Amino acid sequence: MVNPSTLAALPTSGLAGRVGSSAIRDLLALTERPDVISLAGGLPAPEGFPVSAIAEAAAAALADDGPAALQYGPTEGYAPLRAWVADRHPAGADIDQVLLTHGSQQAIELVARAVVGPGATIALADPAYVGALQAFRAADAHLVGIPSDGDGMRVDVLADRLAAGLRPALVYVVPDFDNPTGATLSDERRVALAELADRYGFLVLDDGPYTELRWSGRPGVPLARLTDRVVSLGTASKVLAPGLRVGWAVGPAPLLRELTVLKQSADLHTSSLGQRIVHRVLSAPGFLDHHLAGLRVRYQRQADALLTALHGLDVVPPAGGMFLWARLPGVDTTALLAEAVDRGVAFVPGAAFSVDEPHVDAMRLSFATAEPDELVEAARRLLG
Amino acid sequence: MVNPSTLAALPTSGLAGRVGSSAIRDLLALTERPDVISLAGGLPAPEGFPVSAIAEAAAAALADDGPAALQYGPTEGYAPLRAWVADRHPAGADIDQVLLTHGSQQAIELVARAVVGPGATIALADPAYVGALQAFRAADAHLVGIPSDGDGMRVDVLADRLAAGLRPALVYVVPDFDNPTGATLSDERRVALAELADRYGFLVLDDGPYTELRWSGRPGVPLARLTDRVVSLGTASKVLAPGLRVGWAVGPAPLLRELTVLKQSADLHTSSLGQRIVHRVLSAPGFLDHHLAGLRVRYQRQADALLTALHGLDVVPPAGGMFLWARLPGVDTTALLAEAVDRGVAFVPGAAFSVDEPHVDAMRLSFATAEPDELVEAARRLLG
Repeated sequence: MVNPSTLAALPTSGLAGRVGSSAIRDLLALTERPDVISLAGGLPAPEGFPVSAIAEAAAAALADDGPAALQYGPTEGYAPLRAWVADRHPAGADIDQVLLTHGSQQAIELVARAVVGPGATIALADPAYVGALQAFRAADAHLVGIPSDGDGMRVDVLADRLAAGLRPALVYVVPDFDNPTGATLSDERRVALAELADRYGFLVLDDGPYTELRWSGRPGVPLARLTDRVVSLGTASKVLAPGLRVGWAVGPAPLLRELTVLKQSADLHTSSLGQRIVHRVLSAPGFLDHHLAGLRVRYQRQADALLTALHGLDVVPPAGGMFLWARLPGVDTTALLAEAVDRGVAFVPGAAFSVDEPHVDAMRLSFATAEPDELVEAARRLLG
Repeated sequence: MVNPSTLAALPTSGLAGRVGSSAIRDLLALTERPDVISLAGGLPAPEGFPVSAIAEAAAAALADDGPAALQYGPTEGYAPLRAWVADRHPAGADIDQVLLTHGSQQAIELVARAVVGPGATIALADPAYVGALQAFRAADAHLVGIPSDGDGMRVDVLADRLAAGLRPALVYVVPDFDNPTGATLSDERRVALAELADRYGFLVLDDGPYTELRWSGRPGVPLARLTDRVVSLGTASKVLAPGLRVGWAVGPAPLLRELTVLKQSADLHTSSLGQRIVHRVLSAPGFLDHHLAGLRVRYQRQADALLTALHGLDVVPPAGGMFLWARLPGVDTTALLAEAVDRGVAFVPGAAFSVDEPHVDAMRLSFATAEPDELVEAARRLLG
């Protein structure tokens, strides 16, 4: 067993300390009290997981492919799934532009490590997805937050910063139903962002976990149609199930080759069985459209219930995704959280998503995992 | 589609170039010619994968656990599998000393990143496992090769280097049936290595993918019984199947917490379904002992066939694992490879595993995936 006196002297690189925040993990612990209705998690609705389709796909992959479904595979990923991803890419893509990853979190970290040298700059909307913040800190990047509003990142502010000398290597954006704000980047801002990427030479990291979960309005123009300087991330996590840990990156082939070298060093390749399951389920004729239609109905119903129950609060209604961003002017939401948990409801305080601004009076509310009646009760506890 | 002129100017950290060598991937390409008997791969025998047990475990996990088998999970890993790993750890371990990873390759990289700051030193036997070399280069470590012989790393040479001022943060070792040499570290050297770790304060990274594949001799003393300054890695890859991508690290709890922070940033957590499959198969009463007995018979039969056919060559007979290391004094094995492939046999030249020494006249031969008659024919083609 461990002798504490020797352990104090264990060598360390200091990297874990720099990545630091285990905010997600600490917050997820709140969701486990049975008396608390948690709007704090980032989990998709388990009722939406196609469990039987996944079970059938696992059985079929092992029956049809046998040991090949369990053998080491190419670092780039399982070719039929790469081809499926390439075929659906909105700008068109060849298979050599696709890398399969253990979720899009891994793709975020690989891109950061491939593109961002120590001290280089990443610009991103403020507030931002906590997992991206961790990966960017792990890459030792200098982070610059760009304000955002109901139309997503203020690309006009980014343009001003660039004109004033800011030179990011990477700009990270979640264009559809952002985490945490739920905002969708307007087409006008997408066009402006792509033009800035081409003018200033940065790479756009276009993270799209929620894109398929749109229940109103028309899809935004994909960034990959506006510039070549983009890596687009997708994932099975929100359309099928996150526990499979299957995501993908699509981008310029030379950069994808660099990501592949880093992926090989990171974990050799993505689960052979997981990729086969995802491929079989996603490519089954008619399955995905039908399944997504059901998910959209579920999430819209839940979002509407929460929005209605929160009437009067400063919230931009999302057109898809899993999250609402609410503001309570004059309230410190971090201080409010302990009180809210005592009243039986949990959320994530805005401060958890801070890049530069503290977001003291904001909170992220997930409507993904609670039924409408629970969401109404959660709002009552929150506002009461 | 991609415009090459803009891509030349894509930002890059240079990291992928530093990790560089895609030797494994280039070499695996050789194995795909149907007329070549490949002893070059690092793949375990697919005939040894318990396909039906895995299929039953997948079905049972999804039937019994339902959506929980597909939901996000804790970064540390699936608690029942962590407990199984902790229970079997030879030095005794608590569950908070266990992290589940996407294969032990991921554990190697996480340990390197947690422990080794840029320019810090890692010492390891020369020749060394290519995947470890890549992960250590990705961490920007200074690598120092320690000569090895039929009893593994020359720990006496390491002691001399330490006495002369070498101060590694980490010493990496594969004590049982090393990749590429097949050598087993003698107990005397294990004791000496542990004493050096305690005296000089470095961490030992004890990589044990092949440990369970012993068919002769008695097990070596586990390094974790000799010092607290050790992280021990295990994996389902060689005892069940590598395509599941499930491995684990066991070590001092404070260091494991740092690894967990980095794992969260890297890919959130290991596949929920993959971990449940591995736990169900490994913990089924009586399964593992019976399954390992079959694997040991298979690998011993294949190793014996190859060793007998190679009589006269300078080879240390391994007591387990998947590899032989052969020397052909005066021959450049890299030059020999092209000729050998023309004759219908492939191996990995010693140079691929180089830390400091070139290993010009050596080769790694895997006996894991060919049947005895193919191995005899491969030896005939190699020597002919």
